[in-house]
Amino acid sequence: MKPAAPLLGIPTREDLLAAHQRIAPYIHETPVLTSRSFDDRVGTSVHFKGEHLQKTGAFKARGAMNAVLVYAEQARGRGFITHSSGNHGAALAWAARQIGERATIVMPTNAPKTKIEAVRSYGGSVVFCKPTQSAREATAAQVQLETGGTLVHPYNDYNIIAGQATATMELLLAYPHLEQLYVPVGGGGLLAGAALANLYFGRAEVIGCEPEVANDAYLSFTTGTWHPVQSTRTVADGLRTALGEKNLEIIKSHVSRIVLVSEEEIAEGWSYIISRMKQWIEPSAGTGPAAVFKDLPRGATGILLCGGNGDIPSILSESN
Amino acid sequence: MKPAAPLLGIPTREDLLAAHQRIAPYIHETPVLTSRSFDDRVGTSVHFKGEHLQKTGAFKARGAMNAVLVYAEQARGRGFITHSSGNHGAALAWAARQIGERATIVMPTNAPKTKIEAVRSYGGSVVFCKPTQSAREATAAQVQLETGGTLVHPYNDYNIIAGQATATMELLLAYPHLEQLYVPVGGGGLLAGAALANLYFGRAEVIGCEPEVANDAYLSFTTGTWHPVQSTRTVADGLRTALGEKNLEIIKSHVSRIVLVSEEEIAEGWSYIISRMKQWIEPSAGTGPAAVFKDLPRGATGILLCGGNGDIPSILSESN
Repeated sequence: MKPAAPLLGIPTREDLLAAHQRIAPYIHETPVLTSRSFDDRVGTSVHFKGEHLQKTGAFKARGAMNAVLVYAEQARGRGFITHSSGNHGAALAWAARQIGERATIVMPTNAPKTKIEAVRSYGGSVVFCKPTQSAREATAAQVQLETGGTLVHPYNDYNIIAGQATATMELLLAYPHLEQLYVPVGGGGLLAGAALANLYFGRAEVIGCEPEVANDAYLSFTTGTWHPVQSTRTVADGLRTALGEKNLEIIKSHVSRIVLVSEEEIAEGWSYIISRMKQWIEPSAGTGPAAVFKDLPRGATGILLCGGNGDIPSILSESN
Repeated sequence: MKPAAPLLGIPTREDLLAAHQRIAPYIHETPVLTSRSFDDRVGTSVHFKGEHLQKTGAFKARGAMNAVLVYAEQARGRGFITHSSGNHGAALAWAARQIGERATIVMPTNAPKTKIEAVRSYGGSVVFCKPTQSAREATAAQVQLETGGTLVHPYNDYNIIAGQATATMELLLAYPHLEQLYVPVGGGGLLAGAALANLYFGRAEVIGCEPEVANDAYLSFTTGTWHPVQSTRTVADGLRTALGEKNLEIIKSHVSRIVLVSEEEIAEGWSYIISRMKQWIEPSAGTGPAAVFKDLPRGATGILLCGGNGDIPSILSESN
């Protein structure tokens, strides 16, 4: 298939359909899971889109695959570069390998071991930087200068947003009656994508879910002006990044509100899914259940379980 | 439905079919999962029977439900009693509640918190005892004297064995071509049931999977004489119990061999399933993948993932 021209504006309905068709040979149409005990607790029916079961263990495979296919010509022989707290890095390494290209991933030194190993297992090269937004961007720019590769931003790119949108698009094509959609927000790729997918294929209220201690999306959304990240301490390591400006633009127009959840609420949402549904999700994916526990929405509800790449505890140290 | 007479001998093909029909309205026909990375690593196709997704989070719901329905008349108004390191206790409490009866569960003081809470969440009463086989049995006998309830042994009962057999029966009816079946062995209910299901519905080699540090089934099987448990320290807490005599009788005739796995091998099998398949299984369920990593069988292989009720780590303590 001839690479499409990169998107220069907000993805249209046709752009989402094209992105889905482009990436479909590579990604999983992930299952939609349900839990009677969860439904009983919140008093409505909840549909969980299981992106922890996606290739590379996170929805990021969708955006990365779409971007890699769109940018394939310009990257040929020089590869791809990105900065990422983990899941986008692994996804870009995986996606680049699908078309035989190399990927260099700039990662903060506090990224979970699981995510660093995942990048390497897909053949990606890891370059470490300090865990700040400016260090990430400066280091990625340096690598780009050195290699001539194509920089694929983790979220502030319409091609990434179109790819991430396909997760919600699949959910809404299967369950068009959903009245609320709860979507974690870090950089905003998944949330902006969900908002567009819902605009074209659904009729739900779209609600962002963000850690209280990393509330830059909430501040940017409520004030209408982009706010920097104030803290990167949240257990939801996938949500430590700053909101993208392209993402904010879409979120401002098509997202209803952003629910803030405490670290304790994230931990409770996370452990509930693991203990009752036996699905190994990462802490970031606990924000959706946490927000629903807090909100208690009426009507059929969707939750995006964004990934499953958290560090796994040792069972040997406890008993040996 | 009129309760059936309790089984007095080794379950027949018809007994397994009747047990499955009896419990079908209450239990899940659990999914059979696959993993490309697992298959690539071991060099054959592996089918995982996902009993961690069963009601109560373990295959034990099958045997308990079958026993509760079979013993319903004699237990009426006085309830059920058992001793269990956890999963059978939760399953009996759950099964008793399905027919409106009470259950008292004798549990060792070192049972995982998750399993204690599960018993209580299904309405069961917990009575603690020392973590030894003799203390379990003595305490259960005492409770039986006091309440007049029906004691349902966790595994040394043909009605339990018939119920547990239905897990493997479902797997073999869907995948009759399986050539090896790897089944964890603690008390031996799941393994004896698997051996019978395979005898009637399959043609596989049936292989028990046991921790090296709790190798009583291995010793009993290889010597032909029942051996007591020498250690209860294994991380596979569900496999700390002694092998049942009725179970040994069946296992001796219809199981091919028992593979011993080290604590490190169990931990690796456990974490592999979690990291690659994103399924939250308990340590005992790591013995099957561990044995397959060690054995590297040829031909289509089945693994029984027995349960998913391990303690969940705290994510808050790490970062807060």
